[in-house]
Amino acid sequence: IMPRALGFEFGVMTPGTHNAITDVANVLVGQVTLIEGNDIRTGVTAILPHRDNIFQQKVPAAVHIGNGFGKLAGSTQIEELGNMESPIILTNTLSVAAGIEGIIEYTFSFPENDKVYSVNAVVGETNDGYLNDIRGRHVKPTHVVEAIAKAKSGPVEQGNVGAGTGTVCFGFKGGIGSSSRKLPETLGGYTVGVLVQTNFGGVLQIDGMPAGKLLDQYSFQNQLESADGSCMIIIATDAPIGERNLKRLAERGMLGLARTGGIASNGSGDYVLAFSTDPNSRISHQSRPLVLENTRYLRNDDMTALFLAAIEATEEAIINSLFAAQDMSGRDGHTVKALPIKEIRALKESLNTTNR
Amino acid sequence: IMPRALGFEFGVMTPGTHNAITDVANVLVGQVTLIEGNDIRTGVTAILPHRDNIFQQKVPAAVHIGNGFGKLAGSTQIEELGNMESPIILTNTLSVAAGIEGIIEYTFSFPENDKVYSVNAVVGETNDGYLNDIRGRHVKPTHVVEAIAKAKSGPVEQGNVGAGTGTVCFGFKGGIGSSSRKLPETLGGYTVGVLVQTNFGGVLQIDGMPAGKLLDQYSFQNQLESADGSCMIIIATDAPIGERNLKRLAERGMLGLARTGGIASNGSGDYVLAFSTDPNSRISHQSRPLVLENTRYLRNDDMTALFLAAIEATEEAIINSLFAAQDMSGRDGHTVKALPIKEIRALKESLNTTNR
Amino acid sequence: IMPRALGFEFGVMTPGTHNAITDVANVLVGQVTLIEGNDIRTGVTAILPHRDNIFQQKVPAAVHIGNGFGKLAGSTQIEELGNMESPIILTNTLSVAAGIEGIIEYTFSFPENDKVYSVNAVVGETNDGYLNDIRGRHVKPTHVVEAIAKAKSGPVEQGNVGAGTGTVCFGFKGGIGSSSRKLPETLGGYTVGVLVQTNFGGVLQIDGMPAGKLLDQYSFQNQLESADGSCMIIIATDAPIGERNLKRLAERGMLGLARTGGIASNGSGDYVLAFSTDPNSRISHQSRPLVLENTRYLRNDDMTALFLAAIEATEEAIINSLFAAQDMSGRDGHTVKALPIKEIRALKESLNTTNR
Amino acid sequence: IMPRALGFEFGVMTPGTHNAITDVANVLVGQVTLIEGNDIRTGVTAILPHRDNIFQQKVPAAVHIGNGFGKLAGSTQIEELGNMESPIILTNTLSVAAGIEGIIEYTFSFPENDKVYSVNAVVGETNDGYLNDIRGRHVKPTHVVEAIAKAKSGPVEQGNVGAGTGTVCFGFKGGIGSSSRKLPETLGGYTVGVLVQTNFGGVLQIDGMPAGKLLDQYSFQNQLESADGSCMIIIATDAPIGERNLKRLAERGMLGLARTGGIASNGSGDYVLAFSTDPNSRISHQSRPLVLENTRYLRNDDMTALFLAAIEATEEAIINSLFAAQDMSGRDGHTVKALPIKEIRALKESLNTTNR
Repeated sequence: IMPRALGFEFGVMTPGTHNAITDVANVLVGQVTLIEGNDIRTGVTAILPHRDNIFQQKVPAAVHIGNGFGKLAGSTQIEELGNMESPIILTNTLSVAAGIEGIIEYTFSFPENDKVYSVNAVVGETNDGYLNDIRGRHVKPTHVVEAIAKAKSGPVEQGNVGAGTGTVCFGFKGGIGSSSRKLPETLGGYTVGVLVQTNFGGVLQIDGMPAGKLLDQYSFQNQLESADGSCMIIIATDAPIGERNLKRLAERGMLGLARTGGIASNGSGDYVLAFSTDPNSRISHQSRPLVLENTRYLRNDDMTALFLAAIEATEEAIINSLFAAQDMSGRDGHTVKALPIKEIRALKESLNTTNR
Repeated sequence: IMPRALGFEFGVMTPGTHNAITDVANVLVGQVTLIEGNDIRTGVTAILPHRDNIFQQKVPAAVHIGNGFGKLAGSTQIEELGNMESPIILTNTLSVAAGIEGIIEYTFSFPENDKVYSVNAVVGETNDGYLNDIRGRHVKPTHVVEAIAKAKSGPVEQGNVGAGTGTVCFGFKGGIGSSSRKLPETLGGYTVGVLVQTNFGGVLQIDGMPAGKLLDQYSFQNQLESADGSCMIIIATDAPIGERNLKRLAERGMLGLARTGGIASNGSGDYVLAFSTDPNSRISHQSRPLVLENTRYLRNDDMTALFLAAIEATEEAIINSLFAAQDMSGRDGHTVKALPIKEIRALKESLNTTNR
Repeated sequence: IMPRALGFEFGVMTPGTHNAITDVANVLVGQVTLIEGNDIRTGVTAILPHRDNIFQQKVPAAVHIGNGFGKLAGSTQIEELGNMESPIILTNTLSVAAGIEGIIEYTFSFPENDKVYSVNAVVGETNDGYLNDIRGRHVKPTHVVEAIAKAKSGPVEQGNVGAGTGTVCFGFKGGIGSSSRKLPETLGGYTVGVLVQTNFGGVLQIDGMPAGKLLDQYSFQNQLESADGSCMIIIATDAPIGERNLKRLAERGMLGLARTGGIASNGSGDYVLAFSTDPNSRISHQSRPLVLENTRYLRNDDMTALFLAAIEATEEAIINSLFAAQDMSGRDGHTVKALPIKEIRALKESLNTTNR
Repeated sequence: IMPRALGFEFGVMTPGTHNAITDVANVLVGQVTLIEGNDIRTGVTAILPHRDNIFQQKVPAAVHIGNGFGKLAGSTQIEELGNMESPIILTNTLSVAAGIEGIIEYTFSFPENDKVYSVNAVVGETNDGYLNDIRGRHVKPTHVVEAIAKAKSGPVEQGNVGAGTGTVCFGFKGGIGSSSRKLPETLGGYTVGVLVQTNFGGVLQIDGMPAGKLLDQYSFQNQLESADGSCMIIIATDAPIGERNLKRLAERGMLGLARTGGIASNGSGDYVLAFSTDPNSRISHQSRPLVLENTRYLRNDDMTALFLAAIEATEEAIINSLFAAQDMSGRDGHTVKALPIKEIRALKESLNTTNR
């Protein structure tokens, strides 16, 4: 059961068809989940801006660093050039190298890339070491290629899947979450979609409801729990916007995280990556010299509705990851319980009776 | 009546004595309010890190830019040198020059500054042009000097005062707000205090309660309202932390803003400035060459509780500014209503009956 | 006599007609020089991207901070929005407020700006306090308006003029300098122009010739001289490039400074501001909502020649400021000698005999 | 034969004993060179801030991005936390993943790291694909571990070695270069050392001598040559300076590059990483909560001499890489000639006769 079924709304805008990042035209998601034996609880989530050769058809992109205690590969080239030339791979902290290798192999698999000597692989991570034998580095480049190959549109599997298989969020089982917002036509009709890998702490708040306090589980409650952890936030939109406004959009991802009670603790690697799938905004790798690029972008003045959409979709994607996750046991007998939906439902219903 | 009297709590930590930025030892606040005739609705708010000669005894400081559509003076030197050498002046957008002049005059008034040829004046602003004849530039350097001279510890006047005299927030009357958090001794016992000048839009949420929706007033509701505006956020702490961790603290100010429903719209100038008042961390202007500075700073690992405190205090300071503000009429007969506290109280009470 | 007359070449590219920033179409420069009594040695230099209403017709712009010990006003909004909406004013450190006021008054003087409540004034500075009674703040807003009014195309007055009236560079008299490069048609045929306000130290090098060492005058030589000071670098181009690539262009300004022996000392405020005058790239203040901006920009791949042009023109502009400056006496009987051109000529000629 | 033997001086300061990065106390360099068959021309260069467990004894560090068209791993965590916890590995563009894996294996090899689940591997690269079969990814994690194991103090091998085996610079054979400066005791007596991996273009200038023009080889000369390429610059110092001033030091690395004629072309990945080896500034991984870190850092005011040292040592290190390199043939029969030292000597001598 997902939060909307309980009456949670997360803002004032309307989700897209699947309430997922794949509501943004052309976006594909593929996941490989590794659950083996007692100790392997990890995986790979791949997000593609389109199904074509991404290296040859780059997309405008930007990165915002909410808290940089993390290992995101590829960020500096995205910032310098304003574009992204690979799928986005999410995995665990010690498998970033596997992610890079997998992306290189995938990129080299295109015959027209046979003269490519440089690939800016984009690989994000959070640390699933509590449930997963992370030091074993069980993610291999083949898993990365497989996740990319499986990428598809439509509903996105959430919870204990892909890169979210072993993550923990607000002391509950975290995972992969997704959500989207479709702007009214009068505001442009564009879609903003978000996918998150949740692995962080704070004081959980669900659509304003102080769940962490009500459930008596939050950081510093007894000063024993750590708020550390990380959150990867991927924001896609079909709106035609350039890298500067994509960076501003990415910055709003952290505002969405804040609304769930996230605090970007010292140990958190909170990175937001935003890209546009607008077909007219693609940047071809090869071009004739001195031919001007003809871009048609939204103006600064038209950004605010997209900002709000990104905030709302990030908030909901994070909560979705918690609702979709299940109890998980893993390394060294560690167990993490899922969010107690039944209790959440009861709390929510008691609020609803007040006509809230 | 302030929010806590209605049962709003804003997080899990405890405010300081005055629930204000002045709970941080040494911090002083002085304000000059200009309400004259039908059109002048503006003022100056001065925040001082200590009562001594700030130019000679600089303090560690950092700036985070949430959305840079604003005119904060002094930010680049703070970033380069890691310190602040003037009071912080808040005023209206077109009076930044008056703020700079006032700070220079104040700085030159110290005899021991008679060889000073450069002053990095820190002046923030938001735009009060809806209620105030902002083009008239009624704030003068003398008002700035006066606000500094009036600076004192103890309770902070909030609402329609100083730089908040003419501001608008979430469609209601905004203004100056303040709040603080005192960490438990086991987490260091430090205090974090926040002062805000609120002048922005979004979808108002009060301690999780969706006030904007319940009151039917929020951005994009009918696509007529603008979410634009700005928020200046000043964070002070007595914790001994250097400029890098102060910047991280400043970044959390935007997470606090997000919790109130702020969205950092395109037109918003959202700046956060953080400084430490720790007496041992002051940086003297003159020193003997090659003598090492002996600093004792908190480690990264000890920052998380301060981050949470900054988030909570920013959230509450913003809401406090709304509760403290009163209806205001001004330029061209424009009127802005205060937040309807009576209705808020009723909504809150209906929630309380659910034992929330 | 200017450096080229002595055989200095500063790189491999060709200057424009006037070897000045005004070689970039539409760029105008106006200067007001204040030399009064024994103590006033300062002024204002205004650079305009075009003669129209800049607020209504903004231009793409970016800022790079080489060393942020300075007071550049307007930088954060330029960075956030990617554009500039005012003339650029250069003046002395304590007259930034006057610069802001002057720009506001100039902007308000356009009838079509009568509803403007916010102006992002761009004001840079260096510290002329050695020769000028800087604490007297003799620059007034009227001087700023006057400099803007006098702005014209054609040759740029250099040396002890405008904002360079009282500056010191490499221990010699500095001032305003300018230079330009015109790309060959096969590389696009665009022009890059630079204007500098030189007030910094280091180890002077003229087109590779170690003048500082040969003249026995450089920083740390006897550990008595200060390398401190600042350099404002303004880069204009008619190439159609957006804010991200303008920022990259601005970053190259510091590489040009490095080639003169500048070291960006601790006390230096080294700021580079770059903008495009391409008429098709102007950003109108008012526009219909949701109408896409149709921009035609150069691609990343075509930037390198512009980078080289910016480096060369910055290097030459700095040296030009030294050649054009004259001996100057000022405050408290301080005197700064001009670069000894005769000696430089002799040194250069002795090199030339080697067929270099 | 190295440049100083020909009379080149590169500034006004004095090199350390070995004129290498290893003149900085505790710094170690290890290299593995892969020259196999006709196509493999690559390698690994490892730089260690000390011989102990770097993960447990981190060092203050900072990164400056001159031009971000590159794949430096680890930069964002260094920036967030202000420290570095791994050796620095330099290799080729497509072997960054191998570098990360190697660092993880090395870090895990310490028994006291047995609970480590996260390692911020620092891996820089340039693209040696012209001479090397870079797509073959011949660098393996074992090579990385081997380079670290071989790290030693004393003279640094330069030229076609380690990560510089297959690189090209200014159209000549590039490689690894190193240099250092020792400040006079009156300026603190500290040492600054630099190591570079040179693989970039521009208009070569050797200590001011326009070698590129004199040899008729430079970018855009005939618009056929590409200036693209990259430069990794590593700056070490024993001066006690924190992360903010290390970042400022790193920024000066690009000024040194500029003095050689480098232009940071569009395709260049120019990254500068600076760290302090001061034993008292190490940051232990584990510590007791809330115990203040007692740091003794140089003040801003004392930085300028270090800035100059970094500029000079970077300039000389780059030129050293060219002098030390030899002709190299590689992939697909490509050959790159070394800098013609004999001609350089002749040019230099003709200048010397002019008593320059």
